[in-house]
Amino acid sequence: MSEFDLITKYFTRASKRSDVLLGVGDDAAVLQVPNDRRLVAAVDTIAEAVHFPVGTDAAAVGHRALAVNLSDIAAMGAEPAWATLSLSLPKYDADWLEGFANGLYRLADRFNVALVGGDTIRGPLSITVSIMGLVRTDRWLTRAGAKPGDTIFVSGMPGEAAAGLAVIQNNLGQSSVEQGAASKQLRDRFLWPEPRIELGRALRSLASSTIDISDGLLVDLEHLCKQSGCGARIDVESLPFSQSMRALFSQEECERFALTGGDDYELLFTVPPEKMLDVEAAVARGIRCTPIGRMMENRTLLCCREGRAFDIATRGYDHFS
Amino acid sequence: MSEFDLITKYFTRASKRSDVLLGVGDDAAVLQVPNDRRLVAAVDTIAEAVHFPVGTDAAAVGHRALAVNLSDIAAMGAEPAWATLSLSLPKYDADWLEGFANGLYRLADRFNVALVGGDTIRGPLSITVSIMGLVRTDRWLTRAGAKPGDTIFVSGMPGEAAAGLAVIQNNLGQSSVEQGAASKQLRDRFLWPEPRIELGRALRSLASSTIDISDGLLVDLEHLCKQSGCGARIDVESLPFSQSMRALFSQEECERFALTGGDDYELLFTVPPEKMLDVEAAVARGIRCTPIGRMMENRTLLCCREGRAFDIATRGYDHFS
Repeated sequence: MSEFDLITKYFTRASKRSDVLLGVGDDAAVLQVPNDRRLVAAVDTIAEAVHFPVGTDAAAVGHRALAVNLSDIAAMGAEPAWATLSLSLPKYDADWLEGFANGLYRLADRFNVALVGGDTIRGPLSITVSIMGLVRTDRWLTRAGAKPGDTIFVSGMPGEAAAGLAVIQNNLGQSSVEQGAASKQLRDRFLWPEPRIELGRALRSLASSTIDISDGLLVDLEHLCKQSGCGARIDVESLPFSQSMRALFSQEECERFALTGGDDYELLFTVPPEKMLDVEAAVARGIRCTPIGRMMENRTLLCCREGRAFDIATRGYDHFS
Repeated sequence: MSEFDLITKYFTRASKRSDVLLGVGDDAAVLQVPNDRRLVAAVDTIAEAVHFPVGTDAAAVGHRALAVNLSDIAAMGAEPAWATLSLSLPKYDADWLEGFANGLYRLADRFNVALVGGDTIRGPLSITVSIMGLVRTDRWLTRAGAKPGDTIFVSGMPGEAAAGLAVIQNNLGQSSVEQGAASKQLRDRFLWPEPRIELGRALRSLASSTIDISDGLLVDLEHLCKQSGCGARIDVESLPFSQSMRALFSQEECERFALTGGDDYELLFTVPPEKMLDVEAAVARGIRCTPIGRMMENRTLLCCREGRAFDIATRGYDHFS
């Protein structure tokens, strides 16, 4: 089977979007951006043995490749629209491709994303998705805009994905039924990240700044601080840990996962004092969000326990450090 | 140096485009599409030892990564606007990165393309660029639309890039000053492909169909035939060969390079009879284009010499065949 047949076979499912004027199969796609929208664009690559373990279920890889990009769209308060796919494959494997395509399209369909173009080459397994989304002309979220005094929130349970990866890599949680359930929950959190598109949309008029947590809470908070020109204090007692995390890991491990583990794809955002009531009301209607600290004047990043700062050795994952 | 510093250092040059509302450095870029334009999007990956030889000059790699994508924009009759970059690097190499960035930005600046986002991972050298362009709402080029009787044109000198790659791989053209000049010219044609943006724009109201030649003239013509629902006949005597090609290769080799060699990034397009005079006038003002055959009713692809069909064994490059 040739490269072209391969692409045709797995990646040309029809889309319901009427704004795809020309889709897969030409030199480029032609897309219609509404007059009252801005275009939002991002790219993320995931590679085997770097971003997911060798042997990860193909559907989970397909899901992940799109999810990590949808997370960037969520962090802008935008709505996803279209994606292109570049797939580097070590060999032609029909079962793997079908699983991958199913995982990718299942998530694409949930968020009404059309796959509009692609490229396939032979090489080590890695996937680059470029995502395009739409946002109202007057308002989108950025990493800049946080001010001293703003409260720092995080969605979901940061650290669960890193805990799940540790479960997979060390085959943890085999000794009891309870541990088995906890380890499955954490594994799933790593394997099937959930992009927070709805939350991002809700935050558009509430948050002063937003970032998605892909490299680790502290590392990503550092980016946000830099772009906003201020510092931050995290109160580690405030970090929410799930029952599953507590069932398998010590308090110290949970903290380390939450602060420095990557792959959560939760949103970290800041809220000015005058919007706190609105955020609490919005959060009560939707996904769990937890206040975990405060933006500060001083351009440093502090972790505090019982009000006292302490050092975190490894702040997060960095491919070249 | 961390991944983030690396990205910041090499890939955050300012752009002159006022339609980049938010560029590199956030979760995504925010871009402004004019009301009277459609968005055109494509993606292409190039990998070391697949799309360019090991040891290729870093600036040529940077140029190539963008050029192959600009070629897709050219084939739509669109104008390039923005690009994102995903870079897989085996190791941190400051000289290489600077050369690569220089090659990429030099071409980006020539065509007024803003780099608006990126991702860097550690892995075998490969580069994925996603390109976004703009086209008038009422008219763009596609692979469909060719009709029997339309004349097939090709821009430039197809086969020069494949000949140049052969020169590089076999270290040809060392035996005389004339051969040296010819081999340099062909090497440069492989290393520095020139996207035919201007030509594509001119063809928007003249061509019935267009495709860019990346995989080989015959393979790409086959795609065009399929999308247009008809066949084609190529008269091999019409193929234009440069002096440099003739200086280093036999007639048979030149034909094979022109018909089945990839990497030319020339435009292949079809012109209906009533537009022939307009095309000739447009071509006279700009880049060389040569009529090389005709679209046919019968859904087959024929190569003819002195009016008689003959077989071509290898039609072009295919990563998985």
